[in-house]
Amino acid sequence: MDISHIEHIGIAVPSLDEAIPFYENILGFKCFAIEEVPDQKVRTAFFKVGQTKLELLEGTAEDSAISKFIANNGGRGGIQHIAFAVESGVAEALEEVQSKDCRVIDKAPRKGAEGLNIAFLHPKSTVGTLIELCEDPKKKA
Amino acid sequence: MDISHIEHIGIAVPSLDEAIPFYENILGFKCFAIEEVPDQKVRTAFFKVGQTKLELLEGTAEDSAISKFIANNGGRGGIQHIAFAVESGVAEALEEVQSKDCRVIDKAPRKGAEGLNIAFLHPKSTVGTLIELCEDPKKKA
Repeated sequence: MDISHIEHIGIAVPSLDEAIPFYENILGFKCFAIEEVPDQKVRTAFFKVGQTKLELLEGTAEDSAISKFIANNGGRGGIQHIAFAVESGVAEALEEVQSKDCRVIDKAPRKGAEGLNIAFLHPKSTVGTLIELCEDPKKKA
Repeated sequence: MDISHIEHIGIAVPSLDEAIPFYENILGFKCFAIEEVPDQKVRTAFFKVGQTKLELLEGTAEDSAISKFIANNGGRGGIQHIAFAVESGVAEALEEVQSKDCRVIDKAPRKGAEGLNIAFLHPKSTVGTLIELCEDPKKKA
């Protein structure tokens, strides 16, 4: 697998309205996009830090993975996942990891925020950390 | 504050011996250093991914922050903190954030892994995420 960099870090927050001012006013970043992803029941806010984006995630329903993460974390936010950019493509990477007995949540790439093709590995196979693989389909053309 | 990039991501793991093979054999990274930081009661393993390092952290005592994080997480690993590289220096950044009523864990920079000057902000002021600021003193010379 050919991972070039960390595409983004997914940070769960109880409220974007509460979190964005911290990232802007204290850390000095600039929110460049807010996007709702109905499929994942989240609203996201993006910041760029060097090569990597911070993706703040607010759950829009009680059964969203983000709302559950926050409930399991005593109502507090925290870092929920890390997403690696795979140059050779997500579909090929999924085949490769499964051939090495790594379990996956998504057996095929699906659409995530910003139009990326994404897939999650299963935390049972990653020593606990939720890991996303992603590729920008526009870069493959 | 002048943050240039994400210096590293701190990932708590129950065992480095279990975690390193996942990051090497499945994700294809190469562990370039293993270091014990007695002050923080951790053993760390480092990988480089683009601009950013992954710092796997194994607690070496039950009262280490990493061991507590894993205990609170049902015995599983997970992403424990995110560290931003501050070009203008950690001491100046600590003054700035405190002037904006952001609480800090470290009121002055201290030594972390790899000889970096580091300081943690208080999660009560960061919407839940444990955030580290750091600088490489060798780069200031």
